[in-house]
Amino acid sequence: MRIGIIGVGTVGGGVVEIIEKKRDEFHAKFGVLLEIAGVAAKTEEELAPFKAKGYKCFLDVAELLEDESISVICELAGGYDLPFKWILKAIENGKHIVTANKALLAKHGHEIFPLAGKKGCHILFEAAVGGGIPIIRSLQESFVGNNIESLSCIINGTCNYILTRMAVERLSFEEILKDAQKLGFAEADPSFDIDGIDSAHKTAILASLCSRNFVDFEKIHVSGIRDIAAQDIQFIHELGGEVRLLGLYNKVGDKVDARVHPCIVPTEHLLASVKYVLNAVYLQCDNLGPTLQTGAGAGRLPTASAVVADLVSLARSVESGHLEPLPMSWFRRENSAELVPIGETSARYYFRFVTKDNYGVLAKITGILGENEISIESILQKDTNNREKVDVVVTTEKALESSVQAALAKIDSLPEMSEKSRMLRFLE
Amino acid sequence: MRIGIIGVGTVGGGVVEIIEKKRDEFHAKFGVLLEIAGVAAKTEEELAPFKAKGYKCFLDVAELLEDESISVICELAGGYDLPFKWILKAIENGKHIVTANKALLAKHGHEIFPLAGKKGCHILFEAAVGGGIPIIRSLQESFVGNNIESLSCIINGTCNYILTRMAVERLSFEEILKDAQKLGFAEADPSFDIDGIDSAHKTAILASLCSRNFVDFEKIHVSGIRDIAAQDIQFIHELGGEVRLLGLYNKVGDKVDARVHPCIVPTEHLLASVKYVLNAVYLQCDNLGPTLQTGAGAGRLPTASAVVADLVSLARSVESGHLEPLPMSWFRRENSAELVPIGETSARYYFRFVTKDNYGVLAKITGILGENEISIESILQKDTNNREKVDVVVTTEKALESSVQAALAKIDSLPEMSEKSRMLRFLE
Repeated sequence: MRIGIIGVGTVGGGVVEIIEKKRDEFHAKFGVLLEIAGVAAKTEEELAPFKAKGYKCFLDVAELLEDESISVICELAGGYDLPFKWILKAIENGKHIVTANKALLAKHGHEIFPLAGKKGCHILFEAAVGGGIPIIRSLQESFVGNNIESLSCIINGTCNYILTRMAVERLSFEEILKDAQKLGFAEADPSFDIDGIDSAHKTAILASLCSRNFVDFEKIHVSGIRDIAAQDIQFIHELGGEVRLLGLYNKVGDKVDARVHPCIVPTEHLLASVKYVLNAVYLQCDNLGPTLQTGAGAGRLPTASAVVADLVSLARSVESGHLEPLPMSWFRRENSAELVPIGETSARYYFRFVTKDNYGVLAKITGILGENEISIESILQKDTNNREKVDVVVTTEKALESSVQAALAKIDSLPEMSEKSRMLRFLE
Repeated sequence: MRIGIIGVGTVGGGVVEIIEKKRDEFHAKFGVLLEIAGVAAKTEEELAPFKAKGYKCFLDVAELLEDESISVICELAGGYDLPFKWILKAIENGKHIVTANKALLAKHGHEIFPLAGKKGCHILFEAAVGGGIPIIRSLQESFVGNNIESLSCIINGTCNYILTRMAVERLSFEEILKDAQKLGFAEADPSFDIDGIDSAHKTAILASLCSRNFVDFEKIHVSGIRDIAAQDIQFIHELGGEVRLLGLYNKVGDKVDARVHPCIVPTEHLLASVKYVLNAVYLQCDNLGPTLQTGAGAGRLPTASAVVADLVSLARSVESGHLEPLPMSWFRRENSAELVPIGETSARYYFRFVTKDNYGVLAKITGILGENEISIESILQKDTNNREKVDVVVTTEKALESSVQAALAKIDSLPEMSEKSRMLRFLE
């Protein structure tokens, strides 16, 4: 199988490395031959080491896409616009696609998948979500005997790394972020990760696969980890929980509830054991019950190994055999999921109110919560020497998000409040 | 695809149930039609409900195997001898096989797989190991871009259930076993589970897949959980560990180190979070790093859903498409793995010595350990009011198993010992 690779950065370079090392093994084991027919990149500099090894190199991706001897395009460039054009062209030319590009699939999947369906092209994207965790294959093949009732996932290593270190070292978000950037665990501009956008891309793809409706990532509620205080992580730890940024999917009647936000996970829950850069996907299935897969969610070789597995699978499907592509044409805008608005969701909540003095204010807070039909489970006033900043931690029974928002707005307008109130949801 | 099902007990009944519920969905989603062509069982009684639904029923499996319209045999009967004959016959008749029978594959796989290879028959067995955890597909397909360096798994729900409850409730093995039997979590004759035989079957299959050598389950070291004292679980918990019955695989040069025995898992290790009947497989791969999959390892619907996924996969491979079977002919006796003898393995150890009085005896024990080149990491003498039974807990640095066995034999012969010494290995 002749492969054209677009992008020879971290992941692309890893793919070439693994194929070089394992080409003979794949031939012996599976009877398939993976041949790198060409690599494309933006600069001569990037291409130089590949040229030196004798690979055909392209600065113009269009040329690679026109090579008729190539049957699969491996898109590992990243970004939306150019990859979208390339992939459309590749499919028009009848080429199969292997990609690790979650942003592209979240944004343009609803245009790509139907076209691929028409053209009989396979699109494999195991590496797009959860790096080396085989969650795509599991959803598409291993769990077909189940209805997926819900999914909760940790799919951004940067956020999980920061949250884990905040808990262990009791330091602030800003301090840990700065160190994470120094160590290469966070980008110079980290907003894509820490504001939850990357998690939203991946959650949208997973929610689409679970529901078999197109879930538009731009419509799902997203909040990141910027506003989480070290204080809250400590108080929550004392309550028997850990804070994780989760991608969430629930089937609610005919609607889909898909969200990305920080959640409180009970310490004994498997997701609480998922620390630092590990990713994890936790599923609740009707027949199988609960199941979790965890592993490296990013990085050169983990991601590359998922791409290579897709290539081997594709070679078995289209070169040494003939397997119809998994039907993905349902992944189109006309088949959009109706999303549950965040206001209509419900959860148990954690609040922290920073008050100037707790004599009258506690009555006011509990009064406002009561008016909004929010039942209190516990109230803890934290010891302090500063009467201007008294922490009042409240946990609630299950309450409606819209009621919570209304109550918090009213509480925040009280003159007795020193800071904006903090809110986190418990994982159900 | 016309399916013949042998065995309509727990799992077989579940398979029929899921197919009935999802037949139309599979047709719409994947373009495959799963048709139950016939079911076979030992008694009219078992067959009655299936007869009532209009299924063709067989008391004589041979008849089912001769039905030329059937392209796949789903063997869910259990046991070794008859299933072995049936499967050989089915393969001779060109039928593909889906089975959940780990005992059969561990015992006769080396005869079955090569024959299937010759005949071009697929053998799918996801449900044989870890129930609904898709570990077989992961090893055969998702992780092909990796070398599997080591594997540690919890693959017997009964044992994990007993060990978890012993830790939580601080009760003895016998007490928990009795209750587990009452509640249906352990068989009336539990020896197959608690002595590690079932784990050994599954470990042999996994070790074979990891090493691509035939690993004979009869040759791997097995010890079960019968002799674990509640006392030890508590002491180990205080040391920061949990006891789990693990199946272990390590590649050691050209040899395979495969074993089943109780292990001490550090509390922060993901395997320590795997509790009660959950199963889990923890892998260390060269490219992917560490990864864990966990979920229900047994039970009617979890196991049945894995069988059904295999059936859908098979239908896509042989009915709506044409995929060569995964080459499994290497799974034969001539390609046996050379196993590392248990005496040549090494680990950190936990010992508990029950001594009559600790004045002279501690010097004797440490002397014997020293003579056998076993370095002590810690010694803890447990408070007691009974001078006839003083617990001395010793943990060691890495030591050689044969040295440990020699030392323990000598220590056990000391007149100062009240009981046989206890030994557990730490997970590396």
